Amino acid sequence: MTARFISFEGIDGSGKSTQARMLADAMRGRGEGVVLTREPGGSTGAEEIRALVLTGDPGRWSPETEICLFTAARRDHLERRIIPALQQGRTVITDRFADSTRAYQGGEGTGHAGLVDTLHRAMIGLEPDRTFIVDLPPEEGLKRSYLRAARAEEASRLDPQGDPRSQEEEVLLSQLRSRAGREAAEMRFESLGLPFQQRLRANFFAIAKAFPDRIRVIDGSGTPEAVHARVLAAL
Amino acid sequence: MTARFISFEGIDGSGKSTQARMLADAMRGRGEGVVLTREPGGSTGAEEIRALVLTGDPGRWSPETEICLFTAARRDHLERRIIPALQQGRTVITDRFADSTRAYQGGEGTGHAGLVDTLHRAMIGLEPDRTFIVDLPPEEGLKRSYLRAARAEEASRLDPQGDPRSQEEEVLLSQLRSRAGREAAEMRFESLGLPFQQRLRANFFAIAKAFPDRIRVIDGSGTPEAVHARVLAAL
Repeated sequence: MTARFISFEGIDGSGKSTQARMLADAMRGRGEGVVLTREPGGSTGAEEIRALVLTGDPGRWSPETEICLFTAARRDHLERRIIPALQQGRTVITDRFADSTRAYQGGEGTGHAGLVDTLHRAMIGLEPDRTFIVDLPPEEGLKRSYLRAARAEEASRLDPQGDPRSQEEEVLLSQLRSRAGREAAEMRFESLGLPFQQRLRANFFAIAKAFPDRIRVIDGSGTPEAVHARVLAAL
Repeated sequence: MTARFISFEGIDGSGKSTQARMLADAMRGRGEGVVLTREPGGSTGAEEIRALVLTGDPGRWSPETEICLFTAARRDHLERRIIPALQQGRTVITDRFADSTRAYQGGEGTGHAGLVDTLHRAMIGLEPDRTFIVDLPPEEGLKRSYLRAARAEEASRLDPQGDPRSQEEEVLLSQLRSRAGREAAEMRFESLGLPFQQRLRANFFAIAKAFPDRIRVIDGSGTPEAVHARVLAAL
């Protein structure tokens, strides 16, 4: 058995993170060594870059700077996490990889496809063995994203009343709050609205056409279990 | 009068920051509009990237990731600060620019000169009208750097006794402490030691040879005023 490198892609709220996790669980259940990771982030340094890129005002970075930051984060992720895991013979499943940069920053009409390709060739080079694009109408994806952010926002203010808490419980609660706060704040791309998510979906379709051997588009509608069955069938 | 773009370069502790400031003061004294800035940093976003790159363990980032991060910071600095100032007719003086990346990350033997050039061409393009490399023996530069860090370290623990302080004074004191703490922590490159600084100096000489029209090497020994006089003479 050789280690495989698998990526999940899709618009915000498409369910790709859930699908990446479900595939990792299924493979682990069959005894495979699996590293489940995500972008931007996935390694200590890349997670710090992620915090710079995903929070704050939508105009905080120019498209060019953003492409460069995502590429730096990807390089760190690749050399500190993905390549070492593959070399140990483990399968790597990543929630987003280079196709996200192609779709988000390098899509048609942006004028940045060339820059995305230049930086990818210079800094990354590697492509996954298999990529699943989880496809969903953007209206549905945005609804899911905002629901998740609202739930996270609520959790970040979590202050359960009741029995006095141990110090350990206080620490856990504070970690949960801070994670939820981060998730609620990471809405920069969602805040660009429906037309942006629609262009994004079209960009993912174009990328799927450009890499027909590597990419499979998966219908993301229905229950997570239904989508998972489609992923397994396409693997 | 046309706006000029001037950079100061040199090894750590060479005195280039002092010289950049003295030149800016001199030009302002003659009534010129001058923006004094620095790299990495110089704009809000770039300063945040600076904090990622200059603190922490020397092996925190691979050379490739580091080059990419410096280039992202430079792009932000360029588009948010340098180009707008030049367009307003103001002279821009920057403490470090692209030659620092060439010397620190792209020098002989690193194997990264090609990557530095590729990212510079793709993301930056622009060169200063005039560059001063302030040259000093590395032993002297490191001595200055460590003295400055020790002074900053001391200042970061500053807690003057005496008359009660106003709220305003408390705020100022806290700002001074936090700035000093940052300066004391930004010693990643100095911590690589003398051989690194020696290679760095050789790299700067090689860069000066490669861009003879743009670059002037300035003897950085003696008092700040003596070096300043050499800069003015070479301008």
